[in-house]
Amino acid sequence: MALQDMDKLVSLCKRRGFIFPSSEIYGGLASTWDYGPLGVELKRNIRDAWWRATVQERDDMVGLDAAILMHPQVWEASGHLAGFADPMVDCKACKQRWRADALKEGRCPACGGEVTAPRNFNLMLKTHLGPVEDSAAVVYLRPETAQGIFVNFANVLSATRRKLPFGIAQIGKAFRNEITPGNFIFRTREFEQMEIEYFVKPGTEDEHFDRWVQARFDWYVNLGIRPENLRRRPHGPDELAHYARACSDIEYRFPMGWSELEGIANRGDFDLRQHAQSSGKELTYFDEETKEHIVPSVIEPSAGVDRSLLAFLADAYTEETVRGEPRVVLRLHPALAPIKVAVLPLSRNERLLPLAQEAHALLRPHFMTQGDDTQSIGRRYRRQDEAGTPLCVTIDFESLEDRAVTIRERDSMAQMRVPLAALAATLRAKLAGEPCDEAHLPEGGKWLGARG
Amino acid sequence: MALQDMDKLVSLCKRRGFIFPSSEIYGGLASTWDYGPLGVELKRNIRDAWWRATVQERDDMVGLDAAILMHPQVWEASGHLAGFADPMVDCKACKQRWRADALKEGRCPACGGEVTAPRNFNLMLKTHLGPVEDSAAVVYLRPETAQGIFVNFANVLSATRRKLPFGIAQIGKAFRNEITPGNFIFRTREFEQMEIEYFVKPGTEDEHFDRWVQARFDWYVNLGIRPENLRRRPHGPDELAHYARACSDIEYRFPMGWSELEGIANRGDFDLRQHAQSSGKELTYFDEETKEHIVPSVIEPSAGVDRSLLAFLADAYTEETVRGEPRVVLRLHPALAPIKVAVLPLSRNERLLPLAQEAHALLRPHFMTQGDDTQSIGRRYRRQDEAGTPLCVTIDFESLEDRAVTIRERDSMAQMRVPLAALAATLRAKLAGEPCDEAHLPEGGKWLGARG
Repeated sequence: MALQDMDKLVSLCKRRGFIFPSSEIYGGLASTWDYGPLGVELKRNIRDAWWRATVQERDDMVGLDAAILMHPQVWEASGHLAGFADPMVDCKACKQRWRADALKEGRCPACGGEVTAPRNFNLMLKTHLGPVEDSAAVVYLRPETAQGIFVNFANVLSATRRKLPFGIAQIGKAFRNEITPGNFIFRTREFEQMEIEYFVKPGTEDEHFDRWVQARFDWYVNLGIRPENLRRRPHGPDELAHYARACSDIEYRFPMGWSELEGIANRGDFDLRQHAQSSGKELTYFDEETKEHIVPSVIEPSAGVDRSLLAFLADAYTEETVRGEPRVVLRLHPALAPIKVAVLPLSRNERLLPLAQEAHALLRPHFMTQGDDTQSIGRRYRRQDEAGTPLCVTIDFESLEDRAVTIRERDSMAQMRVPLAALAATLRAKLAGEPCDEAHLPEGGKWLGARG
Repeated sequence: MALQDMDKLVSLCKRRGFIFPSSEIYGGLASTWDYGPLGVELKRNIRDAWWRATVQERDDMVGLDAAILMHPQVWEASGHLAGFADPMVDCKACKQRWRADALKEGRCPACGGEVTAPRNFNLMLKTHLGPVEDSAAVVYLRPETAQGIFVNFANVLSATRRKLPFGIAQIGKAFRNEITPGNFIFRTREFEQMEIEYFVKPGTEDEHFDRWVQARFDWYVNLGIRPENLRRRPHGPDELAHYARACSDIEYRFPMGWSELEGIANRGDFDLRQHAQSSGKELTYFDEETKEHIVPSVIEPSAGVDRSLLAFLADAYTEETVRGEPRVVLRLHPALAPIKVAVLPLSRNERLLPLAQEAHALLRPHFMTQGDDTQSIGRRYRRQDEAGTPLCVTIDFESLEDRAVTIRERDSMAQMRVPLAALAATLRAKLAGEPCDEAHLPEGGKWLGARG
């Protein structure tokens, strides 16, 4: 997807109800976005797919959900209060603030005025807790979910009695006062992270690091991202954060170019040691074999929900021509598609509606469904294509005779006729990856071919 | 559950990994809590059950996920900036702040000093967005998710072309600078809401209000809350919020007494009118029948994730005596239980482990499972009872001969022997509500009775 296509994607997202500009009736709030009816389902599916792969399907992982508000000392120990700052300059004339590294001239880009020497600007959002707004009550909105895992390390260990290696997974909001947010939902000040802190025996970091880079790369591919749009980019020594011994990005070819989709870092024992020192609590693991208390090392795969969502959308967005007409289709993986099955009576004819309702009621407990009886069937197919709905079920006048319905597949536009009694099982098989072709018809089914 | 039992619940929550005090290694952050490995699963299950009942299984609902940060004008229009304040007094001597209505004497409870006249204290948490910390950049953390729905009303309507009545559902964090947080996770400054704004034709409010009160009451009962611990409490006219025409609480008998679990309010057209006026945008619905643009009325069922979680935990918490020994068991509904199935080899004997691993691998794709091979089987059963795990699967030496395993049910402690080949299907049936008794054995199964 090229840069000029980003606008098309933003437009589709608003039109179909994936993503709206936040507080839009009030002119919006810079680079803040709200997820609409389709967007919230896509987001839920991404989170669920991550949780399933990361927590449920593994033996060595547990979950956590820490609060956004944390004790301020957390950010002293983590280095965020001291280090999480960008050098900024202020214009002495118009008082606007600018990133120091963005100024080539040493003068204000807005008014040409003289600017101050660079000062550090902290990226954490600050607020006050409790009835008195004074310095004692200052707290920060967490700039990453990771620290919630480190400060709960001892509690999780004691509650679950896990053995190394094991990991803790967390999904949650984080906030950064980014100077230059932008590129749609790629960089926003409020965002949602999916982070893993994986605790390993010192000396085994490299093998676990490599395994996690591979596992996370595969996760995106398994959910439909084309491998040619993904690449690994190991950080050079000069790029590493102060806590990191090694880091590798998984980059995606976004509309604006190759950019970080996820980072996997070898953080060593930096965080647990810092928090142990700052809190005075022992944050160690007792090794039964060597009978020693050790500080585990940490491998951190850190992904973004919003950024993943943008990659899944961009990768799925396809324009094609069908019988001379343009077709826009989101080829989302069925596990991610917001609506799995659309139920469409051929028309609003009142004879069709009872059977359409019956079919819809039959499917609703099993799948996220949507009914639609407005406009022509062709326009409704196109609307579902734009929503990424993998399967449409159409009820026509013949259905009243034979109690069979038509299934239409999004990508191939192939259609098959299926008895109502076999409908739910057939849809489930197709959504689970069974091909939509003549060789895979249910009993009593009939192949209709590609119809557009 | 009595008040003195709250401490037991808090203790169990920490011990088993449901809920930890936030930032505990730093002494905690007043009334902020983190959800541990079991708590995060319980929370996910509550959210999923609500979403399923509210969005997926209904034809008249869609979802939304708006940002926590919203345009400040939202809070002017909603009345939160002016009205969302508690009268407070400051002590002139020691400078501490107190709720005016909590002071009987007119003197500071801490030092006995004289206090100021009451002033309003805003409950919204304030922060700054962007590189310059000035009044132009002030934003608030939303004190409720509801307004995110109202300001997106036109966008949702245009994207989904819904007909009245229809509703928008949302789950998300909200923040209030409560003066007196407390009672564990009952009242916290950071909390998670599950809110519905249901838009109806003016004149039909009462019938929809009654239906929602019933639907929401039933939701709790269907998920296992005992009806005798729930009651409806209609608000008197003097209690109604400024926007509400009617309101009814669903109260739960918490350890500290009957308290609000959920509120259902008839908000009339207050919110849409306020935002239309404040933004200058038209927030109306075109009625095809009367060919008129109307402002819909709103019914709002507003629930809390944390508060529901506390109610589910308190209601499930049971102490009993089994053969002279105390047993603590969380009788959570299977849909809510964090771990559905525990896989327990009788001992750590190396002959048992391969089959235990085989059984675990068989089940993991289907259920949230947990393996445990430490300590005696009796202690492991008790631990799973405390975690609320509905079913345990035990692999013993006989299993090596007959490839059958024992299923043990949490509440009755009944046990049955089941061939490995029938295990997943049997577990699925039991979790879906099939009785665990002699009349419901799978083929080749054997009834063992209650064993403790």
